Amino acid sequence: MRVLLPLLAWLVTLLACLSPGQVRADEGMWTFDNFPAAAVKRQYGADIPPAWLDHARRSTVRLSNCTGAFVSSEGLLLTNQHCIETCLAGLSSKDHSVLELGFAAPNRRAEQSCPDQRADVLIDSENVAPAIDKAVAGLADAAALAARKRTETALEEACERSSARSRSGPLHCEVVELYDGAQYFLYKYKRYEDLRVVFAPEADIAAFGGDPDNFQFPRWSLDFAILRAYEHGKPADTPEHLRIDFAGPSDGELVLVPGHPGSTARLRTRAELEFERDVVLPFTLLRTAELRGRVVQFGSVNPDNERLIRAPLSILENAIKVRRKQLDALHDDALLQDKARGEDQLRAAARLSGGDPWQEIQAAVARERTLYYEYTFFEGGAAFGSTLLHDARLLVRGADERAKPNIARLREFTDASLPEIQRELYAHVPVYAQLEVLSLSSSLERMREWLGPDQPVVHGLLAQESPDALATRLVAETKLDDAELRKQLWLGRKPAIDTSTDPMIEFARSVDGPSRSIRRRFEDEVEAPLAAASRRIAAARFAVYGTNEYPDANFTLRLNYGKVAGWQESGVAIAPYTELRQAFERATGYVPFKIPDSWMKVRAQLDMHTPFCLSTDNDIVGGNSGSPLIDAGGRLVGLVFDGNINSIAGHYRFDPANNRTIALHPAIMREALDKVYDLKWLLQELGAT
Amino acid sequence: MRVLLPLLAWLVTLLACLSPGQVRADEGMWTFDNFPAAAVKRQYGADIPPAWLDHARRSTVRLSNCTGAFVSSEGLLLTNQHCIETCLAGLSSKDHSVLELGFAAPNRRAEQSCPDQRADVLIDSENVAPAIDKAVAGLADAAALAARKRTETALEEACERSSARSRSGPLHCEVVELYDGAQYFLYKYKRYEDLRVVFAPEADIAAFGGDPDNFQFPRWSLDFAILRAYEHGKPADTPEHLRIDFAGPSDGELVLVPGHPGSTARLRTRAELEFERDVVLPFTLLRTAELRGRVVQFGSVNPDNERLIRAPLSILENAIKVRRKQLDALHDDALLQDKARGEDQLRAAARLSGGDPWQEIQAAVARERTLYYEYTFFEGGAAFGSTLLHDARLLVRGADERAKPNIARLREFTDASLPEIQRELYAHVPVYAQLEVLSLSSSLERMREWLGPDQPVVHGLLAQESPDALATRLVAETKLDDAELRKQLWLGRKPAIDTSTDPMIEFARSVDGPSRSIRRRFEDEVEAPLAAASRRIAAARFAVYGTNEYPDANFTLRLNYGKVAGWQESGVAIAPYTELRQAFERATGYVPFKIPDSWMKVRAQLDMHTPFCLSTDNDIVGGNSGSPLIDAGGRLVGLVFDGNINSIAGHYRFDPANNRTIALHPAIMREALDKVYDLKWLLQELGAT
Repeated sequence: MRVLLPLLAWLVTLLACLSPGQVRADEGMWTFDNFPAAAVKRQYGADIPPAWLDHARRSTVRLSNCTGAFVSSEGLLLTNQHCIETCLAGLSSKDHSVLELGFAAPNRRAEQSCPDQRADVLIDSENVAPAIDKAVAGLADAAALAARKRTETALEEACERSSARSRSGPLHCEVVELYDGAQYFLYKYKRYEDLRVVFAPEADIAAFGGDPDNFQFPRWSLDFAILRAYEHGKPADTPEHLRIDFAGPSDGELVLVPGHPGSTARLRTRAELEFERDVVLPFTLLRTAELRGRVVQFGSVNPDNERLIRAPLSILENAIKVRRKQLDALHDDALLQDKARGEDQLRAAARLSGGDPWQEIQAAVARERTLYYEYTFFEGGAAFGSTLLHDARLLVRGADERAKPNIARLREFTDASLPEIQRELYAHVPVYAQLEVLSLSSSLERMREWLGPDQPVVHGLLAQESPDALATRLVAETKLDDAELRKQLWLGRKPAIDTSTDPMIEFARSVDGPSRSIRRRFEDEVEAPLAAASRRIAAARFAVYGTNEYPDANFTLRLNYGKVAGWQESGVAIAPYTELRQAFERATGYVPFKIPDSWMKVRAQLDMHTPFCLSTDNDIVGGNSGSPLIDAGGRLVGLVFDGNINSIAGHYRFDPANNRTIALHPAIMREALDKVYDLKWLLQELGAT
Repeated sequence: MRVLLPLLAWLVTLLACLSPGQVRADEGMWTFDNFPAAAVKRQYGADIPPAWLDHARRSTVRLSNCTGAFVSSEGLLLTNQHCIETCLAGLSSKDHSVLELGFAAPNRRAEQSCPDQRADVLIDSENVAPAIDKAVAGLADAAALAARKRTETALEEACERSSARSRSGPLHCEVVELYDGAQYFLYKYKRYEDLRVVFAPEADIAAFGGDPDNFQFPRWSLDFAILRAYEHGKPADTPEHLRIDFAGPSDGELVLVPGHPGSTARLRTRAELEFERDVVLPFTLLRTAELRGRVVQFGSVNPDNERLIRAPLSILENAIKVRRKQLDALHDDALLQDKARGEDQLRAAARLSGGDPWQEIQAAVARERTLYYEYTFFEGGAAFGSTLLHDARLLVRGADERAKPNIARLREFTDASLPEIQRELYAHVPVYAQLEVLSLSSSLERMREWLGPDQPVVHGLLAQESPDALATRLVAETKLDDAELRKQLWLGRKPAIDTSTDPMIEFARSVDGPSRSIRRRFEDEVEAPLAAASRRIAAARFAVYGTNEYPDANFTLRLNYGKVAGWQESGVAIAPYTELRQAFERATGYVPFKIPDSWMKVRAQLDMHTPFCLSTDNDIVGGNSGSPLIDAGGRLVGLVFDGNINSIAGHYRFDPANNRTIALHPAIMREALDKVYDLKWLLQELGAT
């Protein structure tokens, strides 16, 4: 399971998904302020007191794309190898792939910077619903949406400004919407911006089983990596961290997972889910499958190409599997029938004044059907699949937006967001021209396929050139692969952008107008009425069912409780633990079932009965990758890296009988660091000796 | 619009589709024995007497994959360029692509053989329902299916044997099922096996607009080609042929289309359509999109590769567009709701004895969900995407089947079918090793993706090799690209196959057992109960609604009537004619919007107001490609080559307001043959001078 890597931002746009119950046993992505400790006590007899919650919260970090946990007092951070693939690729040269070969710092001085990563710890949160309510009171949908966004920017600006003056130092502030707008909080994070990689195993063992085994259990993927947070050039002081219990948890034992689940759609209406089933998922899947085909073929030509595609390919494969299984879930008519029944019940119970919000959503979704493809290709960037073009679009729009007062900007260009954009633009990440041409030409081609050659913007772009010729020319002639140039253009602001003759910048300028105009229509005609109606439904839900519910995931901090557990798959019992022995039995000698030489060499010394992975019934989704599995005593007893195949449907609803989390067992981490990678100094810092 | 080319048989399996109203104005794929001449008289005031019908029937041919029409007394055959792409590719060498450059015989002696094509003319038909009824009487579903197939073989065998002894010469005989088994006929065809290409334009003008314009109108694709049928080494004597009226038809004029529509699903039940929506179409689309990605990337490397992929790419693009729009059609809930309503009405009116056949179909479809993927990958060959492996599987299974009595064989290996198989195996068609590896490795990969690495057959094939390594080895080591070897193995029958050490043959042997076993389950558990229940529904439909209906298309001869007509697209009126002038306006200089040099050179001499294409409201689907458009006087006034985008939904139901046929205007054919290709002798034979 992977969430999307920010440095492959054009893939993110390719895979664009829309953003925005009755709770069953072990279900729930609870906010820390509403954790059902009483239910845990009833079910498991265990106390989860506020001090436990505070410790777990302060030990857990949000990475750029994943979760992680501090595991030493000097800033060691445990997460998944797949969460730092971009960092590892960035450390590579043409002749030496760190991603493929792994990385093991022989000592602290050898730890290597990961400029694309940062770690956020949630320090505090503040209820800002009153301020939002006040700002939008009495406004029509489109005006209310705009007013809310301005207010969010103002709140974040004030928060960051005041924290910068405070003794505890600057905080990063984000307004967070929960329960479809029934709650608004200001989240305040301490941010670590200097992360360095300490250890990552070879890709062949980290991703053992590859795409065939992704979302499968039993499983043998050594998907862990260790970073270290630095402050002021020195290892960060992290008294709040988790101690690892290398014995791991026992079958049936209570385990809790803090983390940052990326996105769920459990509160979405039937109309929205049908739109996802009929439009979003088929559209996304087809473009992703086609791009995978091109990438695979590119990689088949020679070993150099094969190395280049490894990281993007694993993202594409994961995205395809997730969306295929999401589509299957939506094709289960029972799910949509239950959804309709729930809506009828709530409608009957809620006595809503004014129009029927479900009908309003249906009407908004009908408008979305007419705008969705143009919105996704242009503003969403699905037509512009290139890292350099993505940077060009950031530069062009950033120049225009930064010329405005903070409060008047698009939300992704507010002062609070600029450091992340700068980090992205300034990063020295290798860009491969052939892959750029491949992906850009493919996405332009798909744009023409879906919108037709006579759509005005498409016609404007392609009337004189084929997609391939255009992509080849732009990539060949742009100089944007030079990080220094990107920095100059960013710092040069609007004058620099307006006078640039770089063809990628010129292209980005030419598509910015149409992109903004479809965005405006989309916000006014789709997003605003959806937001207004969703908020009314959320309010009705609170009124009828109380607050014994959890909000949909949105990459903010949550906590789930569950237990170590197998399940029944097609009538066959799946045991909750695997052993090292079975990995060697499964190996074919070919990727993705290839065990690296480092392991083959010490095979005789390994304890073949070392536990490798385990399954639990925790409720997680993408974004929880790298989450610690914590026991009632507060010790780390596993590292979440995946869910089973049934967990994918968890995007829409949780199935306690079959939805399972997959974690790495601490014992295999110790066995690997000790006998394969011989990192005694690291084991000592992790308290393993 | 394309039907699938037989020489790319692995693509056919990739694109496997299931085989199996109330009639509105101009709707209907009527059999010639049930043509509603009275309705035509009422609507258009025109007489379509039996002599007209006989003449049209005897002038129309079924090609391997399309329709065509005789247009001279000496065997000239008019069809689409896209119908003979495989033939043109087969005439090419590495340095000279006939497909790309076109072909124009300066005289008869220069006409070139198309060994993959044959032309069938329907001479006679005979009602054989009584014999089928007798054979299946009292049998349970699975036994009835088997008995029916044996009876069909016996009927065909007797027909071919007696015709071979008759004065009129041998006929090709096929049992044809109509109305889901409510009717059975024995169709008797005169077969022309020696077809030669006389003329085909360059691919750039034949497919002008390419995939972006495919299924679009207005349109400017010069999609015609001319073949000639030979008998005994001489031009065939074809007194029954159509005269061309180069003036074309006027707006609103009655036009009739005889032809061989390939497949429709208008009589399918709601349960079957839901299965197609949820399983068949997404599955097929995803594999096709991925393969297109690989093919496009392969073609992007250099001009040689680009040439190699042109034919398979156009098939893939067409298949994707068709299925995308079919999926859209099934996502229109109104269609399925109407279907359910119709079923309820028929159920209420029919007073069926025994179980409810719609429920039986639903139960069979539920079983199909569990068997479909293995069936399609193994028996359907979706896992084995390679022309050489396709041949190997034909050889292996053919050897086993031919050892049995004719009547006991699988239907595709009966004596009546063997000549086609032989033609395929013996043909000297260039096979490109790199494309073979690409497609085979891709399909093996998809097999593992969908069935999982632990499915027993998958595990058996891939436990020791990666998909890529296996595909590379098989293609590198097989000798099956030698047509002489294929012939030897075919003629050597079972002993030759059993002792062959060719790796492709060995591989085919290893998968034949599992393929047969899933086929047996599929036939017994899905096909047989579906057939039985469908037949009961068809009988009920006849009883309630009479015979004023037409059967679903199945690549047998049909006739439709309609008129020249534009339509309204999103509120904009689309006129029914285009002109040559507009093609030059649309050209970008890049494929697929590139006008070839041959046209650019004579641009000044061309009449820019020559009509190019026209649209009509005839009811056609894939397989009708190459159909003549005939006026009430029996003259050819157009050449069907496509439908508009709304015609794709016609697979499920006909929409008279928006479903349009697209035809080439005879005037542009004359203009091209005269001024661009300078083929006066051919124009003379076509009666144009």
